[in-house]
Amino acid sequence: MDSIETQIDRFFKPRNVAIIGASRRPGRIGHIVVEQMVAAKFPGRLYLINPKAAKEGRHILGIKTYASLKDCGGPIDLAIIVIPAKYVPIAMEECVEKKVSNVIIVSGGFRETGPEGIKLENQVKDLAQKGDIRILGPNCLGTFSPKTHIDTLFLPESTTPRPGVGQISFLTQSGSVGGAVMSFAYNENIGFNKFVSFGNALDVDEGDLIDYLEDDEDTKVTGLYLESINRGRKFIDICRRASRRKPFVVIKAGRSEAGTRAVSSHTGSLAGTDRIYDAAFEAAGIIRVKTIGEFFDVARALVNQPPAEGNRIGVITSGGGFGVMTIDALVDYDLQAPELSESLQKRLHTKLPHYYSVKNPVDLTGSSTAEQFAFAMNTLLESDEIDGLIVIPLFMTPLLDAEQVSQAIVEASEQRKKPIVVVSVPSTKAIRERMFKLRLAGVPAYHLPLRGARGMAALVEYGEILRRPTE
Amino acid sequence: MDSIETQIDRFFKPRNVAIIGASRRPGRIGHIVVEQMVAAKFPGRLYLINPKAAKEGRHILGIKTYASLKDCGGPIDLAIIVIPAKYVPIAMEECVEKKVSNVIIVSGGFRETGPEGIKLENQVKDLAQKGDIRILGPNCLGTFSPKTHIDTLFLPESTTPRPGVGQISFLTQSGSVGGAVMSFAYNENIGFNKFVSFGNALDVDEGDLIDYLEDDEDTKVTGLYLESINRGRKFIDICRRASRRKPFVVIKAGRSEAGTRAVSSHTGSLAGTDRIYDAAFEAAGIIRVKTIGEFFDVARALVNQPPAEGNRIGVITSGGGFGVMTIDALVDYDLQAPELSESLQKRLHTKLPHYYSVKNPVDLTGSSTAEQFAFAMNTLLESDEIDGLIVIPLFMTPLLDAEQVSQAIVEASEQRKKPIVVVSVPSTKAIRERMFKLRLAGVPAYHLPLRGARGMAALVEYGEILRRPTE
Repeated sequence: MDSIETQIDRFFKPRNVAIIGASRRPGRIGHIVVEQMVAAKFPGRLYLINPKAAKEGRHILGIKTYASLKDCGGPIDLAIIVIPAKYVPIAMEECVEKKVSNVIIVSGGFRETGPEGIKLENQVKDLAQKGDIRILGPNCLGTFSPKTHIDTLFLPESTTPRPGVGQISFLTQSGSVGGAVMSFAYNENIGFNKFVSFGNALDVDEGDLIDYLEDDEDTKVTGLYLESINRGRKFIDICRRASRRKPFVVIKAGRSEAGTRAVSSHTGSLAGTDRIYDAAFEAAGIIRVKTIGEFFDVARALVNQPPAEGNRIGVITSGGGFGVMTIDALVDYDLQAPELSESLQKRLHTKLPHYYSVKNPVDLTGSSTAEQFAFAMNTLLESDEIDGLIVIPLFMTPLLDAEQVSQAIVEASEQRKKPIVVVSVPSTKAIRERMFKLRLAGVPAYHLPLRGARGMAALVEYGEILRRPTE
Repeated sequence: MDSIETQIDRFFKPRNVAIIGASRRPGRIGHIVVEQMVAAKFPGRLYLINPKAAKEGRHILGIKTYASLKDCGGPIDLAIIVIPAKYVPIAMEECVEKKVSNVIIVSGGFRETGPEGIKLENQVKDLAQKGDIRILGPNCLGTFSPKTHIDTLFLPESTTPRPGVGQISFLTQSGSVGGAVMSFAYNENIGFNKFVSFGNALDVDEGDLIDYLEDDEDTKVTGLYLESINRGRKFIDICRRASRRKPFVVIKAGRSEAGTRAVSSHTGSLAGTDRIYDAAFEAAGIIRVKTIGEFFDVARALVNQPPAEGNRIGVITSGGGFGVMTIDALVDYDLQAPELSESLQKRLHTKLPHYYSVKNPVDLTGSSTAEQFAFAMNTLLESDEIDGLIVIPLFMTPLLDAEQVSQAIVEASEQRKKPIVVVSVPSTKAIRERMFKLRLAGVPAYHLPLRGARGMAALVEYGEILRRPTE
């Protein structure tokens, strides 16, 4: 018998896949799944199950159809079920018989619809146990991984574009939020490794997936969108261990009382009070964020920069107002922006004009040059007064050589002594491209002080998580 | 003698303008100002003052140069001074002699640099009083108004693109933040009416400008970026009255103790504690935001939608997860998302499938149609259980006719019974264009639940400000 990890691995790297309910009609879920598997360049064999099409000898997108699993020649690692809920138990019986290892049940109409659905879900569960089948879903999108060429999501790429290969993985209870997260990543040029929409989590749940991703070499940061947690103790135990290996970041919706009520209406599960979740995430070493945008601000930083050794942040800016707003934002996230010592200020003034204020923020003003940025960055990075650096080169400043200051920032970042993030104003295409290049070079670059501070705060928080004593 | 309002009006609609310190060298501040005035299609006469160029009979961008103000034939409404600080008093003397009405002192090097600068600033102040001259600055960018074709900003358009004509005006103490606000507006397709960077506010300050904008027919919403307020009592008195005519939204930086220290280093002014500001803004009927992004979220709503009569918000969604996140976000902003009454739920279920949850959020699910959206919107707008509506049509939902649902939203918005804002996921170019069209039709459309909720919260807050008893 395979280990759970080996079995979960097949959701991302199945050798062969059967689509039960493959449809000939464009626009249908059973058709989109076939299209997306083809578009993903799935390297294994695809068995399309559709009794009517098989009887007529029809193909779907040029791929042969079969009347049932029995008729498929080879073994099947993964079956994707996209037929109405009431027929799912029959399909599951076939999967047991065929010794299918993994099943993704895309179909909705189970627990979330009431007592009848719960009965159906239990039937499916019994069959899964009988056949030692690992199940994702029901009521889910399944998996997407651009690296391993799998895409079971029934969201057409024309409306939900897919991100490229990267080091972020994402687990979601909600399909619509999952789709939004993917298009957000695509539009922001952020790469993904593994994406899993697990829906009702009849079998494989968020805990199992975190356990799996802890050992996944391709994943550097994992995000989770959750509305409720079914097996809380298990989840916390797994996260507490896994979070020492890599950061886990959660968007837990249903934070408010009204939101909790909305979750119950939406998923039929009990969401529990938010304070309990906060305490649980804290204990589990999980970083919590409120929104999808905030998740990416945090993920961008965690993927690229080292965790901070403390919470004292230095700010170097060419715009005084931006310095002030950044300091405010740091304090919003409970970070410190200490006034630099007299001696450090003196050292800065050896090469900076006396009228530059260098207390923190170090304000290089509209007259700043790339050399001044490089000098200020290195001086602060070498000091023991700060644990992280926010650099704000307003690239439109006339005397500032944008290429040279970018180079200096990348070099400072590559020392990996202390985390560095950049904030700038994306006024023009040229500046946006410059920020994009910084990101490619591993420097998280943000459009607003508050967002840059959020990224830095995550690096500080993850540093604190890593420094916790082991039990 | 003209009233202050009439005089301030000349900063935006001068008949003739002199640029003292116009430069022949591209890249110089004194050259950029000429370029921008030309690019803005300033309709009046431009007198360029540059003794050396005048002596050599040189032109700048084809415009004649003069040795001094005396030599200019006609009267001059506005002089823009872009020469080093120490020569500014001499230029001011010329302005007094020439009976110039308004002066923008772009030059820095005054109060913000210490005792010498303060002395210089006082000299200028005395001359202004002598000549009854209204001054903007020193240490500022001056004014920009695409409608009246003025642009005194020395930020070249190639790095700080200018927004088109709109109904938002913006006042800022910080030039760099002002530039960022303008490019943000440009990139988000948000129109501007008047932009003023007033720097050290030696004469005309934020209070005078708010007083002026209160009566300005072209301005519907005014934003302010402030780091400190010099004449607090005057400011509050003016805002208290003006905020009943139109909304004023402030970004006050230096919120934290560390941020206050940063302001003092940056501007040389005392920023005061943040709690005092909060109380003052509250008393003055001013809406406070933290970031530039948040300012635009709020301004978008206030420009287009009516204020709300109360704080009970209904949510209609085609994605359950988005419903939950939106409810959470509403609660974050102290709004209510009440559970709808049994009778209202029954009314909704007359035309919606029984398995749709309609408690609030009204979850139309992935099966939603445009008719269902229209029906749910109208039912909620007609009820007395909610005061505002957040509509979340995930345009990628397969059965949803995007054009039809947009039309229904615009129609609902045009009734102007209750404020409506939209949240959607900008996955694709087509969806972004759809959201853009909604905005053109007066429906604020946001990319994230939290941002939509922020817009709605501003409409609720402004409704509360308007309902306050007059003293």
